[in-house]
Amino acid sequence: MADPELQLVARRIRAYPDFPIPGVLFRDISPLLKDPNSFRASINLLANHLKKTHGGKIDYIAGLDSRGFLFGPSLAQELGLGFLLIRKQGKLPGPTVSISYALEYGKAELEIQKDALEPGQKVVIVDDLLATGGTMCAACKLLDQLCAEVLECVSVVELTSLKGREKLGPVPFFSLLQYE
Amino acid sequence: MADPELQLVARRIRAYPDFPIPGVLFRDISPLLKDPNSFRASINLLANHLKKTHGGKIDYIAGLDSRGFLFGPSLAQELGLGFLLIRKQGKLPGPTVSISYALEYGKAELEIQKDALEPGQKVVIVDDLLATGGTMCAACKLLDQLCAEVLECVSVVELTSLKGREKLGPVPFFSLLQYE
Repeated sequence: MADPELQLVARRIRAYPDFPIPGVLFRDISPLLKDPNSFRASINLLANHLKKTHGGKIDYIAGLDSRGFLFGPSLAQELGLGFLLIRKQGKLPGPTVSISYALEYGKAELEIQKDALEPGQKVVIVDDLLATGGTMCAACKLLDQLCAEVLECVSVVELTSLKGREKLGPVPFFSLLQYE
Repeated sequence: MADPELQLVARRIRAYPDFPIPGVLFRDISPLLKDPNSFRASINLLANHLKKTHGGKIDYIAGLDSRGFLFGPSLAQELGLGFLLIRKQGKLPGPTVSISYALEYGKAELEIQKDALEPGQKVVIVDDLLATGGTMCAACKLLDQLCAEVLECVSVVELTSLKGREKLGPVPFFSLLQYE
């Protein structure tokens, strides 16, 4: 890991065993948010990847409730784009579309407002971390309901042993840091 | 409202009656996030107010789970500061302090990591909206448990008829937009 910006990010991710349940090694991004230079680096790295990969083709950045909200708006700003909220059930007013899914520890539902996107618009989804990929996969299917195109999913941290990347099928995935 | 940046913000706040429960007029910030110029304007306006009021005295921006997460990191970046997560119960690993409180429709608990702050550090708390002030007031008490000093609370939207500002007592409060 020679990239100094990536080192700034890596040194601000903390590990906690057995949280939120026994057997899970939780990767805590709180220190990353607390250090402005490291947070800036994480946004720059994600933005540079997206610029290089998709140029000006992205219409929106969408982020997952709630830790995707920490990165999404800053990433969208860096790219000059708007940000779309993908929320947990019952949080968004007006007409919505929703999807149920199983997550790493429990069950949940995601929603987006129906007027968030026009058919054919191109979206990149961001979250803090990819584990089993259940939430990210559900978010892709949710945007598919609005006939949007998910160009890529990105996260700061990826837990590779959980193979979340495979769950996303043909949708490209990019992460800054990979842990077993 | 002559300020063109404030007009950009105001035109992207949408009202939904009877959400999430009958009798509540919900102010939806989704369109603000979707328009990068309007979101940028909201961050600029909050940052300019804080620079003018506190100069370089602020140590951290803290934000409330989960809509405060949409504004907090961008605001912190604009001020060159770190961002602290104030989360709902059970979401933060490691030693935490917590506080229970009644909110507009229901009950809840807020938590922060014990090592988030040193005693005497100066914090500004941000959320999207101030309603009854229950959540913001609880956040102030939470930071008080860590012997931090809350310099000010800020939000994009304030529902003035609910008198949340009064609930904050001696802690200054600032909002960009006020609605009855």
